[in-house]
Amino acid sequence: MALIVQKFGGTSVGSVDRIRNVARRAVATRKQGHSVVVVVSAMAGETDRLLKLAAQVSTTPDEREVDVLLATGEQVSIALLALAIRDMGHEARSFLGHQVQIRTDSAHGSARIQGIDAQPVLDTLAVGGIVVIAGFQGVDEHGAITTLGRGGSDLSAVAVAAALHADVCEIYTDVDGIYTADPNICEKARKIDRICADEMLELASLGAKVLQTRSVEFAMKYKVPLHCRSSFHDGEGSWVVPEVEAMEGAVVTGVAYDRNTAKLTVMHVPDVPGTVAGMFRPLADADINVDVIIQNTAQDGRTDVTFTVPRSQAQKAIALTEAAARQLGCGKVLADSHVAKVSVVGAGMRSQPGVALRMFTAMGEAGINIQLISTSEIKISCVIDDRFTELAVRVLHDAFELDRPPGQLRESQD
Amino acid sequence: MALIVQKFGGTSVGSVDRIRNVARRAVATRKQGHSVVVVVSAMAGETDRLLKLAAQVSTTPDEREVDVLLATGEQVSIALLALAIRDMGHEARSFLGHQVQIRTDSAHGSARIQGIDAQPVLDTLAVGGIVVIAGFQGVDEHGAITTLGRGGSDLSAVAVAAALHADVCEIYTDVDGIYTADPNICEKARKIDRICADEMLELASLGAKVLQTRSVEFAMKYKVPLHCRSSFHDGEGSWVVPEVEAMEGAVVTGVAYDRNTAKLTVMHVPDVPGTVAGMFRPLADADINVDVIIQNTAQDGRTDVTFTVPRSQAQKAIALTEAAARQLGCGKVLADSHVAKVSVVGAGMRSQPGVALRMFTAMGEAGINIQLISTSEIKISCVIDDRFTELAVRVLHDAFELDRPPGQLRESQD
Repeated sequence: MALIVQKFGGTSVGSVDRIRNVARRAVATRKQGHSVVVVVSAMAGETDRLLKLAAQVSTTPDEREVDVLLATGEQVSIALLALAIRDMGHEARSFLGHQVQIRTDSAHGSARIQGIDAQPVLDTLAVGGIVVIAGFQGVDEHGAITTLGRGGSDLSAVAVAAALHADVCEIYTDVDGIYTADPNICEKARKIDRICADEMLELASLGAKVLQTRSVEFAMKYKVPLHCRSSFHDGEGSWVVPEVEAMEGAVVTGVAYDRNTAKLTVMHVPDVPGTVAGMFRPLADADINVDVIIQNTAQDGRTDVTFTVPRSQAQKAIALTEAAARQLGCGKVLADSHVAKVSVVGAGMRSQPGVALRMFTAMGEAGINIQLISTSEIKISCVIDDRFTELAVRVLHDAFELDRPPGQLRESQD
Repeated sequence: MALIVQKFGGTSVGSVDRIRNVARRAVATRKQGHSVVVVVSAMAGETDRLLKLAAQVSTTPDEREVDVLLATGEQVSIALLALAIRDMGHEARSFLGHQVQIRTDSAHGSARIQGIDAQPVLDTLAVGGIVVIAGFQGVDEHGAITTLGRGGSDLSAVAVAAALHADVCEIYTDVDGIYTADPNICEKARKIDRICADEMLELASLGAKVLQTRSVEFAMKYKVPLHCRSSFHDGEGSWVVPEVEAMEGAVVTGVAYDRNTAKLTVMHVPDVPGTVAGMFRPLADADINVDVIIQNTAQDGRTDVTFTVPRSQAQKAIALTEAAARQLGCGKVLADSHVAKVSVVGAGMRSQPGVALRMFTAMGEAGINIQLISTSEIKISCVIDDRFTELAVRVLHDAFELDRPPGQLRESQD
């Protein structure tokens, strides 16, 4: 008899038939004797439709009013889901953000959750009802509707689970769980049974978009076990757990890639304090996220600085960097949008030397030239020509034998 | 410097362009120095779209959840309108039903307003902002969203105007105001400048659907002047006022018709107490609204009873009446769906005899046979063959010289 929070995204409630499927799953869980709270997003496409309407009436839409507009998406979903559950003969009740007091700050469009009033939810659960809560939305201290930003429904679900001390927060998606690599380009990719939060965060930030980053951080902070699973079948998915529980002997847990990458090189940067800062300030002011940064040792008082930015922001970044380079007395700016970042991630590499060597060797044997390298405690990333992205993922997946479960891997190596 | 409440229906906010028009009008009123509160409905078609979704997930949709669903329609409208007003450089703020505490009972789908918290509205007006309020919706004592029923946005506007002691509640529609007859079938129809509430109620209940009935009652109870006007131009519309202010000497104010009428006659009804009650009880239980009822003096202990029902409910009414007639020992049931009701309405007829005679004479001279007659203090209705509906309206409009303003009419008669 557990208390289970189930979160369904926009695709899972994207049509009337899919809403009925979600209802069936919630009812089945309830019939097993569990208390069930369902958190849902807006129907797929709805948020975009609403944003388009806003853009049609306003050139610079006010964020407070945009939140009023967007919050209707989830409101439609909770009403339809509650109706569908009731149609199956089970008690259900919908709650909007303000009705369960999902209190946030007033940062419209990217509000942060400050607290939840669990009592209305507990009252409904106490009489056996299924609770349906609108994800993505909250209410600030003035009673204004706020939204948590894209993917915020994951965060809502985790916050609700934390407030209720739920036994698990199940995140339903259209994939079976978290994989060792993108199954679309690596057929040997294997579903990971348990992954530690740090690894999950690295994979998420690298484009393996199963879970919203903030929700993973939030879950770990409040010790909410996360279970990422498929909305199409009942099989186990992947559990995201604190690091100590995840240690299964794997050095590398997964291979990720990110194609939304462009590389800029500023030539002949004067090697004097403040120059590099002056180069990156305009990018920061323009909210351009600079990722890998490489600066070689200076020669003759000059050095080259190379960095990556999201490819979608490359044009803007180039213009800003060229202007800054002129002002700072640097040389030419070279740009290359045909690059990708490939990374291996694993909490186990902290205690295992030789991972980088194994990665570079595998890439070299496959004839893939490494343009930039960047490392963190649990990740090694290489920027390469993006034509070799899929090949690199498969080569690295093989090199670290990720198709074998961690236990087997250890045996074969010992 | 007045406080003006403006209400716009679904057609007036039916597209992005139309929402911008509404914004322009609100801003223009504000620029004249007035305080402006706008109440809006859902965009045309939206409520039907949502109800269709509800019907797809549930065979007997729960009314509480349907209200959660429907309330999104007005929420989208207020957000878009506030955005459009702000885009024109004016401060605007949207409020949902619960944010201005439009408190209602818990009769979901047809809730009654119990009170409003005017303070948040007054605060926004005090700093010069235009207030945009969601019509149609309220909140009950448990914090659940309620809706007021179809056309409820008129009622919201009047209730807001009453709570704010507004100088006027302007109801914007796609017609210029209230006419002496339907301009589509009577080209001489004249816009009425001032109409008393009782007349308005009779006209509304007879199919001249400019104003929702409950909102007129509410406006008169709280002495809110109503101004029905066109959303397409700035010309004056029709004012709905207490009777004493409306007296302009007109005996008849307008001619109305209703084609949603069917006539049933039960033959040979035993003239014993309780028989007629037994005949109408099944209709009442089935929520069928019986309108005109005629019973002639009995002969030989038997009488015929004739009555009208909405044509849309005729089949059901016939079946129920036939069953009742058998049980009560009555004769055959005759039904005729090809009838219409034509009425003349006017508060002035209370003090003016001869109106009925003038009506019957005009109908007779036009060769229109009157099948049933029913009268109230300020209305005389005739049921006729529905093929003569338009002719009857024009004939009566001429007979009472409704194309002339009341002042002129009086002069010509004196």
